[in-house]
Amino acid sequence: MGGPRERQAPWRSQMSDTSIGIVMNGVTGRMGKNQHLIRSILAIREQGGVRGPRGTIYPEPILVGRDRGKLERLAAAHGLSRYTTDLDEALAESDARIYFDALSTSHRVTGVRRAIAAGKDIYCEKPIAADLDTALALAREARAAGVKSGVVQDKLFLPGMLKLDRLVKSGFFGQLLSVRGEFGYWVFEGDWQAAQRPSWNYRTADAGGIMLDMFAHWEYVLSNLFGPVRSLVALGATHVPDRYDEVGKHYAADADDAAYAIFQLGGGVVAQMNSSWTTRVYRDDLLTLHVDGTHGSAVAGLREVKVQHRNFTPKPVWNPDAPNPIDFRAGWADVPTNDKYDNAFKVQWEKFLSHVVWDEPFEWDLLAGARGVQLAELGLRSWRERTWLEVPELGA
Amino acid sequence: MGGPRERQAPWRSQMSDTSIGIVMNGVTGRMGKNQHLIRSILAIREQGGVRGPRGTIYPEPILVGRDRGKLERLAAAHGLSRYTTDLDEALAESDARIYFDALSTSHRVTGVRRAIAAGKDIYCEKPIAADLDTALALAREARAAGVKSGVVQDKLFLPGMLKLDRLVKSGFFGQLLSVRGEFGYWVFEGDWQAAQRPSWNYRTADAGGIMLDMFAHWEYVLSNLFGPVRSLVALGATHVPDRYDEVGKHYAADADDAAYAIFQLGGGVVAQMNSSWTTRVYRDDLLTLHVDGTHGSAVAGLREVKVQHRNFTPKPVWNPDAPNPIDFRAGWADVPTNDKYDNAFKVQWEKFLSHVVWDEPFEWDLLAGARGVQLAELGLRSWRERTWLEVPELGA
Amino acid sequence: MGGPRERQAPWRSQMSDTSIGIVMNGVTGRMGKNQHLIRSILAIREQGGVRGPRGTIYPEPILVGRDRGKLERLAAAHGLSRYTTDLDEALAESDARIYFDALSTSHRVTGVRRAIAAGKDIYCEKPIAADLDTALALAREARAAGVKSGVVQDKLFLPGMLKLDRLVKSGFFGQLLSVRGEFGYWVFEGDWQAAQRPSWNYRTADAGGIMLDMFAHWEYVLSNLFGPVRSLVALGATHVPDRYDEVGKHYAADADDAAYAIFQLGGGVVAQMNSSWTTRVYRDDLLTLHVDGTHGSAVAGLREVKVQHRNFTPKPVWNPDAPNPIDFRAGWADVPTNDKYDNAFKVQWEKFLSHVVWDEPFEWDLLAGARGVQLAELGLRSWRERTWLEVPELGA
Amino acid sequence: MGGPRERQAPWRSQMSDTSIGIVMNGVTGRMGKNQHLIRSILAIREQGGVRGPRGTIYPEPILVGRDRGKLERLAAAHGLSRYTTDLDEALAESDARIYFDALSTSHRVTGVRRAIAAGKDIYCEKPIAADLDTALALAREARAAGVKSGVVQDKLFLPGMLKLDRLVKSGFFGQLLSVRGEFGYWVFEGDWQAAQRPSWNYRTADAGGIMLDMFAHWEYVLSNLFGPVRSLVALGATHVPDRYDEVGKHYAADADDAAYAIFQLGGGVVAQMNSSWTTRVYRDDLLTLHVDGTHGSAVAGLREVKVQHRNFTPKPVWNPDAPNPIDFRAGWADVPTNDKYDNAFKVQWEKFLSHVVWDEPFEWDLLAGARGVQLAELGLRSWRERTWLEVPELGA
Repeated sequence: MGGPRERQAPWRSQMSDTSIGIVMNGVTGRMGKNQHLIRSILAIREQGGVRGPRGTIYPEPILVGRDRGKLERLAAAHGLSRYTTDLDEALAESDARIYFDALSTSHRVTGVRRAIAAGKDIYCEKPIAADLDTALALAREARAAGVKSGVVQDKLFLPGMLKLDRLVKSGFFGQLLSVRGEFGYWVFEGDWQAAQRPSWNYRTADAGGIMLDMFAHWEYVLSNLFGPVRSLVALGATHVPDRYDEVGKHYAADADDAAYAIFQLGGGVVAQMNSSWTTRVYRDDLLTLHVDGTHGSAVAGLREVKVQHRNFTPKPVWNPDAPNPIDFRAGWADVPTNDKYDNAFKVQWEKFLSHVVWDEPFEWDLLAGARGVQLAELGLRSWRERTWLEVPELGA
Repeated sequence: MGGPRERQAPWRSQMSDTSIGIVMNGVTGRMGKNQHLIRSILAIREQGGVRGPRGTIYPEPILVGRDRGKLERLAAAHGLSRYTTDLDEALAESDARIYFDALSTSHRVTGVRRAIAAGKDIYCEKPIAADLDTALALAREARAAGVKSGVVQDKLFLPGMLKLDRLVKSGFFGQLLSVRGEFGYWVFEGDWQAAQRPSWNYRTADAGGIMLDMFAHWEYVLSNLFGPVRSLVALGATHVPDRYDEVGKHYAADADDAAYAIFQLGGGVVAQMNSSWTTRVYRDDLLTLHVDGTHGSAVAGLREVKVQHRNFTPKPVWNPDAPNPIDFRAGWADVPTNDKYDNAFKVQWEKFLSHVVWDEPFEWDLLAGARGVQLAELGLRSWRERTWLEVPELGA
Repeated sequence: MGGPRERQAPWRSQMSDTSIGIVMNGVTGRMGKNQHLIRSILAIREQGGVRGPRGTIYPEPILVGRDRGKLERLAAAHGLSRYTTDLDEALAESDARIYFDALSTSHRVTGVRRAIAAGKDIYCEKPIAADLDTALALAREARAAGVKSGVVQDKLFLPGMLKLDRLVKSGFFGQLLSVRGEFGYWVFEGDWQAAQRPSWNYRTADAGGIMLDMFAHWEYVLSNLFGPVRSLVALGATHVPDRYDEVGKHYAADADDAAYAIFQLGGGVVAQMNSSWTTRVYRDDLLTLHVDGTHGSAVAGLREVKVQHRNFTPKPVWNPDAPNPIDFRAGWADVPTNDKYDNAFKVQWEKFLSHVVWDEPFEWDLLAGARGVQLAELGLRSWRERTWLEVPELGA
Repeated sequence: MGGPRERQAPWRSQMSDTSIGIVMNGVTGRMGKNQHLIRSILAIREQGGVRGPRGTIYPEPILVGRDRGKLERLAAAHGLSRYTTDLDEALAESDARIYFDALSTSHRVTGVRRAIAAGKDIYCEKPIAADLDTALALAREARAAGVKSGVVQDKLFLPGMLKLDRLVKSGFFGQLLSVRGEFGYWVFEGDWQAAQRPSWNYRTADAGGIMLDMFAHWEYVLSNLFGPVRSLVALGATHVPDRYDEVGKHYAADADDAAYAIFQLGGGVVAQMNSSWTTRVYRDDLLTLHVDGTHGSAVAGLREVKVQHRNFTPKPVWNPDAPNPIDFRAGWADVPTNDKYDNAFKVQWEKFLSHVVWDEPFEWDLLAGARGVQLAELGLRSWRERTWLEVPELGA
């Protein structure tokens, strides 16, 4: 590849090129390794950095973890030389400017706090903390320390969501009325067929539960696409209480494996979100958002979006005696893929790097991350108290 | 045709044949005329009556209405001779045994009361009254008078619901977990394209609103198929407040045109029901119920049902970078139509006639009808009070 | 059927019912007989007349023609009793209120003038005259005499055009930009395969030519759907000069069998219209209008309309080296048939009868008909003078 | 690869092999680089040169540009060693025989003049100049200097056009009657969706406009396939006056983004050409030519051609009351791809190289290029003067 040579090539000398050290904590885990290290940071290096009108940003990862052997193997596999088991050592590197954290939720706070204290800009996975108070504290500390921050909100950058965003912004829907979201699939019980998710997801003591996991996503998806969440009612359920773990041992699943929720958004939009690890999928995709507006409707999946404008909406007649004469799905058109879509995680990384180096706008900061924690917390409370709850606005 | 001659055929002489007079009030209206008179009672006459092991029941309709001209023409068009604008005259007919009422809700109570007083068995459309107190009063009065009663619950007898019922009863689902119902379609606003529903549906003052209309259906569908409704939370919305009526005049639509509800059923089943006149249909049918159980799932429409057994449930991998490799709908199988399904209204009429004449079991009585009114009333209250509500058990 | 008895039924006594005599001249010809007499007037009688909020209009045809035998047979075939070869006799009938004319263009003026003089309301086929001066004179005479008038503009009432009209009125197109119309098909030469149009169509001396025939249609279609025609350039061509007539005899075709025209409409819309009897059809229908607007496009045929909204418009890449990867037509959606569409001629007849009896609005009068003649005249002049021509506004 | 070794293979020793230097100016631009350098010249090298009965021509590119860095990288990427920022230095190379120019129109004339003065054969992109006078001057200077010349007319060598040419030459059409061409697609506005063409295309000051761009193509396509253009009328329009440029900034689009034109060709053929960047495509391809002749018709796209011979032309009946019973497109047959078609640009390069080295015929010279400029100039004048214009014949 020869990144360095290229970066010094005379033809780009009039622009400012920046090498930026990123302390990456937790990249020996599945998500951290695949989505953040390999498919984001290494992919950005491979393409020659993030290029913009003001130059190029070239990321230099410094791996941090608890297991030296794992780190060594990971670094070797990808031609990297900088890794350590000592976070402070990593933060002390002269070019280290960003701290990234993909540890499990319960370990996140400590690392982020030390990085803020070291004056690093912060980028981390969601949820940023297990409770709202801590999440807000982190946001305030980052602000007080004058460091920049970002929280992973990858679903915003999925092709399907980007297409949906364009539909909203281009006025396709007329006035937005409602959203019906369905997320999930069948997670096998683990006995007669191995489960495809880790067992901690189904234990309350391990911060499991689908509400904690997914409401953070719904918060940023709904508020970015359709409007801020103003109130909610939620019901959790543990539909499958008997599960078998990674080694085939029975355990009592006591966390919610399905969540039924209704959200009221600013502007009068109603969003009904169904999240379930105990449903069999009869949809176009694992996540679908059905959006209705006065002038048109859309059904968005992760990549593809179908639309029906009011001018080609059929007028069905209720006649259960005869087979339904309308093929309802046939009356929807595909939104074509007119743009090239990159990996959603990488897209957000590039935006964050541009924010850090060039001060380009980036709205998904720790305070935004705290909103996700807040919504999950309120969902769990609404379930316990069996009532609607308002969502107070968060100030930094 | 010749019903009478058939009824005296020698081969059926050992059985008792019954001619039964039915006072039909409100059959000049659309539903009363098409579904009850023509497609049920006249169709039963055309097939030679309701035949059973104990003989044949042959219905003789006596039409009642306010407009003599309309009655005259309706009778003439179908070769009927008995009609009157005087309800008491009809109830006094010597062979009149059943009173049927398809008037609008606000007119229903008076007629039913007079018929109970006259000792007639009662069959009527839903909702049986506009409020629970009146509904319960009717049920108690009928019981006190010793007359039989029935309330139309046609959706139970749709082919799709009958197939679903068989899936439940045969144990296909293992343990039932959850139901997700979606009902509705786009009702046009009436200006740029004529509306396909009457304008009173959208006015509170005229007892409009989708919750009042549909919750009565959800009550008997859910309780008959899956278990009694124990509690609910509901949210209504008037998504389209500006509509144009039958003559193109603007009016303010103030009744709910969409209802978002979560029901908890006996046995821990959760049912999330979405009812909307402001959605564009991306489903197999105008009404679909997605049912998940430990051993299998089903998606039922009005006539067709798709199933996926746990043994052919796929194990999807979350990878938004690549187009989704699984065609999720292709992995579902059709429940074949092994039975011949008759018009749902007619099926229930035949059951009620058998109940009246031969005392065969019939569980959909006025008390069952009162439960539908109760659920709608609770739904509206939950919406106002923004809280979950328990559903008290009704005694006659 | 028993129309008369029904019309006197007591239930409609509060409304005014009107029997109205229509002198129908030229109904022994193909169009007059099929479209106007049988499929319009007789069909209206069969359905019990034109019904409206103010009563019912029941048309009574009085046939006029030159050939008594033909008239007699036509009347007998359809159970009619009133016919004559004497126009004045017909106009003198006491209930005659409308004069309808479907004679050939050259014979139209005389009959219309006599009917105006007799104080009858006028309804006639297009073109209303062979030249603009005569057409305008007729319009002025009708106005001076205080009679109502109407000109057949049937294409406006084709399902495809009605759907297109709704697209325009509902704002589907955003700002209208352009229209590309293609009309026509291959009319066989008559020697090796019989022609499917009359030979006079191809002779100038007989007022043939596609410009004279079709520009009258384009005038009302364009001005009613998109905006008034402000200027035009037109080129005619006689692509097939050798034709064979109804008896197989060769004749010199000297009238235009194809017309290439560009129209500028009010509001900046450009309409390019191609009319040809010498083209082989590679389209959805015999007439198609491709309409482009800022927010969407449509391709309308006689009955079906396809639409593409800007949100599902593909972004093609010009790469002639590889087979085109986009199936362009697949990216268009059908406008569903949400309304019941009646025969276009009958629809306009019903509107005209309502105009005559109930004064309901009707904008397609003799002056509108004169605009059609004007456009054809200007088209022929533009061809001769090889220049754009403005279209002067016509006053009555 | 080993071009040199191959060229010395014993079995070809009786033929004369020629290495020929080509000064390529403007190949750092998109078209110059992709279509001319990579897909034509380098592809020819890769296949071992242009082989003919008289030997092999092996092209040696000498790259010229203003940006040394770009040239260096381009050369390196393709294993080339000869490049310079000094045109004269390039022209002075001993083996330089051809000068190729793919600069923007405004820079073309200078380079071509210097190359003519240096005695080089000329090959260049279209349009060869911004106005007819300059274009003609270049043609005359080349002629006076005795150098050969060629102008890119790539569309002639597209598979669809080659198939069409064969249909014409083989007499399929009988007598040619008319051509209806449609070219274009929707170029996005640039705000809600990025534009897929450069912004200068929409600014008059930057020599934008679809007429200037496309009429040069129509000239050689029409005259080569069907006959010389004798006269024209054209109308331009700026349908979308508000556009957003490459960096999202609003600009006023004042050049024509659609052109409506009618051409009269020698032999009486009429060609109606619609060119638009503001239309949504409902066709087989981005460019289609519908050709009608007395004996058959064709619809040609860039690669595929459909035909309908008069013997399988249907005879449609006009009956808008019933759905159209004929699937018109189904009655057309595909012209099979009996030949292997190479990249159109490369095909013309091979013809030009054979012309230069072996004097094979080549009719698309600078004078032909001047005809394209002439047609665009006349189109713009016809638009301004609102009249038909004759096309004077050009002499060198």
